[in-house]
Amino acid sequence: MVSGHVFIATSLDGFIAREDGDIGWLVERDDPTEDHGYDAFILDIDMIVMGRGTYDSMRDVRPWHYTRPVLVLSASLTDEQLPDDLLGKVHFTNKSPQDTMAMLEAQGIRRVYVDGGRVIQSFLRAGLISDMVITRVPILLGQGRSLFGTLSSDISLIHEHTRGYTSGLVQSRYRVAT
Amino acid sequence: MVSGHVFIATSLDGFIAREDGDIGWLVERDDPTEDHGYDAFILDIDMIVMGRGTYDSMRDVRPWHYTRPVLVLSASLTDEQLPDDLLGKVHFTNKSPQDTMAMLEAQGIRRVYVDGGRVIQSFLRAGLISDMVITRVPILLGQGRSLFGTLSSDISLIHEHTRGYTSGLVQSRYRVAT
Repeated sequence: MVSGHVFIATSLDGFIAREDGDIGWLVERDDPTEDHGYDAFILDIDMIVMGRGTYDSMRDVRPWHYTRPVLVLSASLTDEQLPDDLLGKVHFTNKSPQDTMAMLEAQGIRRVYVDGGRVIQSFLRAGLISDMVITRVPILLGQGRSLFGTLSSDISLIHEHTRGYTSGLVQSRYRVAT
Repeated sequence: MVSGHVFIATSLDGFIAREDGDIGWLVERDDPTEDHGYDAFILDIDMIVMGRGTYDSMRDVRPWHYTRPVLVLSASLTDEQLPDDLLGKVHFTNKSPQDTMAMLEAQGIRRVYVDGGRVIQSFLRAGLISDMVITRVPILLGQGRSLFGTLSSDISLIHEHTRGYTSGLVQSRYRVAT
């Protein structure tokens, strides 16, 4: 069975970026000597699914950030618009979250890293997220792009563990109750 | 010097109550055998400041919940509208957060527990909060009354400690950086 997994950082008031996409507040509070577990997390991931916004913010970053195949949910982008060096590394689909996961399951994909606020929200609403690792950055931004959005019903979580880092980051892992 | 202190629980998506004020989701995830530190916190508090909404939700609860004098920020309520048994325990003021704290300081009050979403937000915006103990409840509500609100500038925090409880609650203490 394919499963969706979240690994993301937010401000204490729940924003993953400022309205304009800026994450400088996050980068300057990150201590690169601390291991926040991303490398171990990504080792066990088969595919990364992200939205158009996340793709646009990462598209021109070199070296290319992702060590796993990336699938971008976009109704308008196609492989023809890919930079040459991303051919084969990035694909696009206009499928729904549910149909995307069904397609990935048919391809033998097991663990999918779901990234970006709106995509995480739509996957949560569709019941496609198994667990979330959320790292809290010690700042209040007051406004920005929210990690979470509206839901048609509560989602109960099971807390698995929490760890505080010397940098002030606090990382919690939650399983979605089924 | 008088200082403001927050001690509050929120859903993982940052809500302190549903839109209608319901906190059943919180109560049912609370384990009364766990010590979440409220009793120790309140021992060192001289005065509780809350908004009209919090007062209205607690006004009819008996036995009266608060073991410290309560000051309600309200432009319309006066002591004449108090139930008899709350006379002397609850007072009202229509002062601003800044003027309220100046008044309390002149009265020799040192540590103020600031409670309720909108009051916490206005005290944060006015720079009147020294530290916050935030307990995360493992649920996503999708909508409700937010703990945090908009800010005119970032508020940097210093993480002091975090503790996870068997119930799934996770409690973090932050100092507001000055």
